[in-house]
Amino acid sequence: MKAEVTGSSPAYHPKMLKSTMNQSNTKPQTLKGFRDFLPAEMAVRNYVKNTLTQVFENFGFLPLETPALEYASILKGKYSNETDDKLGYFFKDNGEREIGLRYDLTVPTAKVLAIYSNQIQLPFRRYQIQPVWRAENTQKGRYREFLQCDIDIFGSSSPITDAEIISLIYTGTQKLNFKNAIISINSRSVLSAILTQSGVEKDTNLVLQSLDKLGKIGELGVKSELNSKGLSDTQITALFKYIKEAQPDENLKQVFAKLKYLDVPDNAYKFDPTLVRGCDYYTGTIFEVSVTEPKVGAIGGGGRYDNLVATLGGPQIPAVGFSFGFERLVDVIQELNLFPQTSQSNTKILVANFGSETEKNILNLVSKLRDQNISSIVYPDADKLGKQIKYATSLNIPYLAIIGTDEAKNNQITLKNLETTEQKTISFDELVKIML
Amino acid sequence: MKAEVTGSSPAYHPKMLKSTMNQSNTKPQTLKGFRDFLPAEMAVRNYVKNTLTQVFENFGFLPLETPALEYASILKGKYSNETDDKLGYFFKDNGEREIGLRYDLTVPTAKVLAIYSNQIQLPFRRYQIQPVWRAENTQKGRYREFLQCDIDIFGSSSPITDAEIISLIYTGTQKLNFKNAIISINSRSVLSAILTQSGVEKDTNLVLQSLDKLGKIGELGVKSELNSKGLSDTQITALFKYIKEAQPDENLKQVFAKLKYLDVPDNAYKFDPTLVRGCDYYTGTIFEVSVTEPKVGAIGGGGRYDNLVATLGGPQIPAVGFSFGFERLVDVIQELNLFPQTSQSNTKILVANFGSETEKNILNLVSKLRDQNISSIVYPDADKLGKQIKYATSLNIPYLAIIGTDEAKNNQITLKNLETTEQKTISFDELVKIML
Repeated sequence: MKAEVTGSSPAYHPKMLKSTMNQSNTKPQTLKGFRDFLPAEMAVRNYVKNTLTQVFENFGFLPLETPALEYASILKGKYSNETDDKLGYFFKDNGEREIGLRYDLTVPTAKVLAIYSNQIQLPFRRYQIQPVWRAENTQKGRYREFLQCDIDIFGSSSPITDAEIISLIYTGTQKLNFKNAIISINSRSVLSAILTQSGVEKDTNLVLQSLDKLGKIGELGVKSELNSKGLSDTQITALFKYIKEAQPDENLKQVFAKLKYLDVPDNAYKFDPTLVRGCDYYTGTIFEVSVTEPKVGAIGGGGRYDNLVATLGGPQIPAVGFSFGFERLVDVIQELNLFPQTSQSNTKILVANFGSETEKNILNLVSKLRDQNISSIVYPDADKLGKQIKYATSLNIPYLAIIGTDEAKNNQITLKNLETTEQKTISFDELVKIML
Repeated sequence: MKAEVTGSSPAYHPKMLKSTMNQSNTKPQTLKGFRDFLPAEMAVRNYVKNTLTQVFENFGFLPLETPALEYASILKGKYSNETDDKLGYFFKDNGEREIGLRYDLTVPTAKVLAIYSNQIQLPFRRYQIQPVWRAENTQKGRYREFLQCDIDIFGSSSPITDAEIISLIYTGTQKLNFKNAIISINSRSVLSAILTQSGVEKDTNLVLQSLDKLGKIGELGVKSELNSKGLSDTQITALFKYIKEAQPDENLKQVFAKLKYLDVPDNAYKFDPTLVRGCDYYTGTIFEVSVTEPKVGAIGGGGRYDNLVATLGGPQIPAVGFSFGFERLVDVIQELNLFPQTSQSNTKILVANFGSETEKNILNLVSKLRDQNISSIVYPDADKLGKQIKYATSLNIPYLAIIGTDEAKNNQITLKNLETTEQKTISFDELVKIML
């Protein structure tokens, strides 16, 4: 090859870089805040992703994907908090365009709704599961690349759609085997009414931000914070009085009625007038699902946001949606051992290799097993049996199939259960019956 | 909210940006070379991805994922062609680190093999399906973000592994319903022997590059190109003579024998001594799969590369692998209408909405349908029936379920086939039977 060498930067010269790496034995590194997912972790992630995808599709949500890179102007300045822009990955491409990496899934979807309005039939029920990138402080245990998992219904303000989303949250947590998940439900208008009744008229968002911390700092903590924010004792007392007396408003009552019709059990959700959920853009119903054990808090949240799509550059359409905290779900599932045993390894059988004499038989066996959709591999070399078994065990493969010269003669297979070490010599049809 | 405004750039001030957008009605745009995938396209892409994933897992390959961003030093200068680096997306992050977007899937996997060598049991069979980014010239119809779909076996030089990969290619094309896919197989050593026999000793890569164009420019074209590269007429005549007489070498014969044992039919593959496949890093068997109709050429290629992993910064281990040309597969499947009808829409039923009187019934129905894994949605508003039917048709939903006051009274459902317009009034159990 005749690659031209510019000489300006040694990194641009492949041969030089390679020899440098070999000489210094520099070990490659993964960037801080980023993760490589080896097969064992991928198995859990795929389980969560596939389980949720099935639920989304069962509820009639359709898949959408958008590019990793967008014009910076699409991404920047879209939320009220300026720090969001600083957490984004922005740079200039070779054509001097200001571009950036996807920061969330709502902004790109608003873009899609704006560009393809003539191809998209409303109400538009879409799910989107893609990574997003944020230059977070990694010391908080946050990741700079993580999967987001959003469902939204665009173009309907019917409370049926609110109830459908909540019903989906319930089904999703059930399918993931969460026993103690609870969905807290509130409404922006209930919160507004409480504030008005309590005589809080200005800085309502500041007051709600304090209220949002109720779970973390308790009633006393919130009261003292509100005090320091300038609320009078009368206002604070009234606030907590009206919170305790709060009832669902007319719209929320409708949502609750529809939840019953949708067979969501009473103990799966509760009205929680203290639920705030960073209320900047929500306009109606808000909800959050959390598990009490382990105490990780919310594993997802959402609500109705009838003005956001227009604000983000899309058309003026109502919307209601929810985002599962994918990374947190994976953590909880690992911590509670909710990952089904059967999903630990897709590969069911390692076919042992004893060399050329039975090679035809073992390759034939692996081919026939795969035809029956029994995932299997053949060990590629005639290594010692102990080494082959060790290999199977390290990959969580439950069975070893052996065809020695005797088995080959009798057209049989010795099947060894690697957990119990039991083994029996059987026909192919018998083997298939055991595996299915 | 009290976001501080720096004033340096108007784009950083959300309110200013928003009002600018509203005033000028600037329509958001997707970057050139990047694509938004709406649900209809996603259905085809997911079908291809899921079909291949099932084949990969059936063959005992395990999933691996690596981050979108890596240190530039990991990505740069890894292939002999310097232009690769220019096609990469490189930039500095907030911490002044030189980073870049994933350019292929082999370099990150070599990194994984280097970092996690103590966690990875060899032979390591992994599949990786992730997007990669390249600043390609979009005028050629190339994309700047596209999905790569790789399978590789690391850590074995057994010809069984070569045969396993080829067997997987065959199964993959079968599962995707390709009738006329053919796998061309050759070996780097067969090519080397031909060149030696023909008296070609230097610039062998340049000669192979011309030979690689045989399908495009024909024998005469290749001959004239070789002539201009300085090969004598004697050498050129000898080259084509030895190509015509070429036979598989000992290793390739072993691979072919194992393909028979693995039940790959004879007409699915052929020995092709003219197959070159950009031979820079291949060391043994090489193969390519193509379809003759439509004439898109190769839909995937691969081979054995026993030195590349070390060159890329990984350990010194042999490897054999294959990459499906995902975007081309999607194109071919759309062009040949190979996408199964049943996969066009996951949603099977739209439940019509006639208002509050039967709302309980329709929500109950949709809940019970979903319990039976029959994907369905309820129309959220009591719009005119024609509008609801139009909505279902636009989403390719095949059935409409109607519960009017009569049906509600008799605990029945009227099921309308939206294609044939046939309808019948039936019980829920009968409906389930029709749908399954």
